[in-house]
Amino acid sequence: MQLNDLFTSSYTVSDKVYKGFIEVFNDNNPLHTDAGFAKNLGFEAEVMHGNILNGFLSHFIGECLPIKNVIIQSQQIKFLHPVYLGNTIELQAVIDYYSEAVGVYSFNLKFINQANLKVATGKIQIGVL
Amino acid sequence: MQLNDLFTSSYTVSDKVYKGFIEVFNDNNPLHTDAGFAKNLGFEAEVMHGNILNGFLSHFIGECLPIKNVIIQSQQIKFLHPVYLGNTIELQAVIDYYSEAVGVYSFNLKFINQANLKVATGKIQIGVL
Repeated sequence: MQLNDLFTSSYTVSDKVYKGFIEVFNDNNPLHTDAGFAKNLGFEAEVMHGNILNGFLSHFIGECLPIKNVIIQSQQIKFLHPVYLGNTIELQAVIDYYSEAVGVYSFNLKFINQANLKVATGKIQIGVL
Repeated sequence: MQLNDLFTSSYTVSDKVYKGFIEVFNDNNPLHTDAGFAKNLGFEAEVMHGNILNGFLSHFIGECLPIKNVIIQSQQIKFLHPVYLGNTIELQAVIDYYSEAVGVYSFNLKFINQANLKVATGKIQIGVL
């Protein structure tokens, strides 16, 4: 893993993911669960929980890197466009900082949907254990 | 909701939450699933996924505020200490910014475990829809 390396991983907000997230975290806010409520506010349908993207990010860090002995130190995300049920999100992560001395990698993150719309951006810093 | 208002909500990283998170997001990194691997790295046991805290945050924003018509615009989190299975985390959120003109609230976040250790800090900005 070195500076400017690009990693990508694709995730679908399936019914299993959506309902599973609600089952685990009990966030039944009507924006996420009531199509009429969401449509009255100008959305196409129920808006998926933003933190589903952070769950995908957990998988990316835990499972998609060439090293396993890592831990997340910090992360941030900005939500730019709504994500809907069934959307497929490509996570694009570029290493924008690396310190061998302290064993830290930082990634710039983009979450792109199937219509090539950037739905979120973020940063994540991980430590090598 | 006004400046300096404090909200608290308590969450337990139960077996249901831990296993459910893995079932939904498939992050089986050995730090989270292999006690021997985690102990060899100096941890007490399997370290819970940091993004479980972000799932709790989703519940807090979606379910614990006096208004429901909100959406997360951005959030950030720093992980300071490991969280283990069975730990209880109190989320403390203080409104540190509010603009009625643009309908935005920002909260300072602390995640405190049952031993009164601050395991994570963060910020979240929400918009009123």
